[in-house]
Amino acid sequence: MKNDQDYMRLALDLASSAKGKTNPNPIVGAVIVKDGVIVGTGLHRKAGEPHAEVHAFNMAGEHAKGATLYVTLEPCSHYGKTPPCAKLVKESEVSRVVVAMQDPNPEVAGRGIKMLLGAGIEVDVGVLEDEAKRLNERFVHNMITERPFVISKFAMTLDGKLATHTGHSKWITGEAARADVHLLRNEVDAILVGVGTVLADNPSLTTRLLEGGGKNPTRIILDSHLRTPLESNVLQTSEADTIIVTTIDADSELVRLYEEKGVTFIYVSRVDNGLNLQEMLVKLYKRGITDVLVEGGGAVNASFLKAGLIDKYLIYIAPKVLGGRNSLTPFTGENVDTMDAAMQVSFEEIEKFGEDIRITAYPKQGDQK
Amino acid sequence: MKNDQDYMRLALDLASSAKGKTNPNPIVGAVIVKDGVIVGTGLHRKAGEPHAEVHAFNMAGEHAKGATLYVTLEPCSHYGKTPPCAKLVKESEVSRVVVAMQDPNPEVAGRGIKMLLGAGIEVDVGVLEDEAKRLNERFVHNMITERPFVISKFAMTLDGKLATHTGHSKWITGEAARADVHLLRNEVDAILVGVGTVLADNPSLTTRLLEGGGKNPTRIILDSHLRTPLESNVLQTSEADTIIVTTIDADSELVRLYEEKGVTFIYVSRVDNGLNLQEMLVKLYKRGITDVLVEGGGAVNASFLKAGLIDKYLIYIAPKVLGGRNSLTPFTGENVDTMDAAMQVSFEEIEKFGEDIRITAYPKQGDQK
Repeated sequence: MKNDQDYMRLALDLASSAKGKTNPNPIVGAVIVKDGVIVGTGLHRKAGEPHAEVHAFNMAGEHAKGATLYVTLEPCSHYGKTPPCAKLVKESEVSRVVVAMQDPNPEVAGRGIKMLLGAGIEVDVGVLEDEAKRLNERFVHNMITERPFVISKFAMTLDGKLATHTGHSKWITGEAARADVHLLRNEVDAILVGVGTVLADNPSLTTRLLEGGGKNPTRIILDSHLRTPLESNVLQTSEADTIIVTTIDADSELVRLYEEKGVTFIYVSRVDNGLNLQEMLVKLYKRGITDVLVEGGGAVNASFLKAGLIDKYLIYIAPKVLGGRNSLTPFTGENVDTMDAAMQVSFEEIEKFGEDIRITAYPKQGDQK
Repeated sequence: MKNDQDYMRLALDLASSAKGKTNPNPIVGAVIVKDGVIVGTGLHRKAGEPHAEVHAFNMAGEHAKGATLYVTLEPCSHYGKTPPCAKLVKESEVSRVVVAMQDPNPEVAGRGIKMLLGAGIEVDVGVLEDEAKRLNERFVHNMITERPFVISKFAMTLDGKLATHTGHSKWITGEAARADVHLLRNEVDAILVGVGTVLADNPSLTTRLLEGGGKNPTRIILDSHLRTPLESNVLQTSEADTIIVTTIDADSELVRLYEEKGVTFIYVSRVDNGLNLQEMLVKLYKRGITDVLVEGGGAVNASFLKAGLIDKYLIYIAPKVLGGRNSLTPFTGENVDTMDAAMQVSFEEIEKFGEDIRITAYPKQGDQK
């Protein structure tokens, strides 16, 4: 005998298969159950395509009448690219709706649930709510802050080193961990590095999935003084979009040369001797970028840390001890005097990738902007 | 129906309760089983006290006849503080002996097993051998190298920092991890730091178990130039023994002042601008020190790393991101140019201690002296 949690977990599992494919929309899964039989299933596959509920009701047809709908996010109440799902739910004559979490979208925010209750449908909210929020962490963050969700990702040795003093880092982690990074790139809208990384490694920052293919994220280069070489791999804009973030003082002649190569510019003010990252994030979000994978070196990472703008940490640790007094560490930046100055995080998950491990951590509530 | 593995696991569990209490002897557990009933159990509790087999046979009495003995280490064949266990086993008339691992002690090394076989007893060797070797890693290392087993232990933030640039590190980890360190101190013969740590923190380096009490390890200070202040906490030799490791050039007048406080000296040659650690370990072993917990800062840790003398890593990682370009990292020392120079290790275990995690790692075979 399955219970509400079981069906909601199934709906969450269905939803999670579309992770990174629905941006800027949330990930949503739906399951319709009647007399202990699953009569409808669906998930939102891509922005512009039908919502999860639509697929599930299409499958269920007449069986929806008197059934229970399990849906990972409150059914929408507004006319967007598709009509409101709450209306569809009402018309389907289901007798009960179980919702994992309220929609943080201010255009919905409880109105969908209210519509259902108004129609006399029994509604239960909060089943596997924490899991649902985690699954849609990017969307929830977007709705609350109107900024992209920022993931700080790096690979280090067991003694916390990113590279030797010469910058040599190939390879810290093994194949499984490196393949995982390409899965991440495939899921995010953008990937960000500092110009230092471009100068040192001339990376392409494209997605190379093991099975081939993959979606290339927009590449974002932090470059205050326009030092990105015009022949850099990141400027091959036929492969993927490239945005250079610089200051309003940038040389317009030089900017024109980059623009001819298809590069887009975002101009921000200066703050603390660096680029104003908060301003940059607001501008990126307005351009439709909902999440950013920061693959910066120590200085870029430290700027995000100091600005309190890291929403998630993905840290690969390789079974190696490097040492070396000038080896590079993941966060440099201004010195701090006491341990209290550290950003408090919590360890969410520790997974093995081949011989390496990956730690997922989040800033502690209240220790983040 | 229990099998050989089950009984051997019980014997290993019994043995492990005496971890750190049997030095310089191995940890050993024994279980005697007849017709599916455990008729005897025993473990070696302390050097000088009876071996595990003796306790188990005392308990079994007449029931040992025709029974099976499970023992985590080959029964000894030589007269030490006690008569050879292999002789006792023969006299007990057990019909079968299951041994987890051969005794690496060159005075035994298969002779115990041979004695049993010679007496017509069925002998099986190698049941849960890996677990047994791990449990006796300190003893196995002692027997093979005639040096103490060296454990490198440190606590760092998620970004690989030991302390801020000022040396401030109180506290990186939480109470559970700090309590675990005192359990470690309670198990080892010695704890080692550099004089830099003494000057910076004036630690006592004693054991403070949560339940009170605990065995203080011998404190070893690496101090080439005899900079340890005479009033340091580590020189309170009424609490615990203290050894200063210095060079043969040490000022004998100064040495006398330390000796008056009860400090013992070990003199070693210089190597690579530092103390010869290999020579030190040989001398410590001759004094009966079978394992050393290195709680050094980055320089001491790096010296052990470079010399290839770390046998085990215990690394606590706290859920904090510190940053700071001059924050202290676990291994400093000479710069290395490429990633291939890193010491390869393997992750053995990852455990939670409160909000912190502890990674246990070992050098990979062939990547260690």
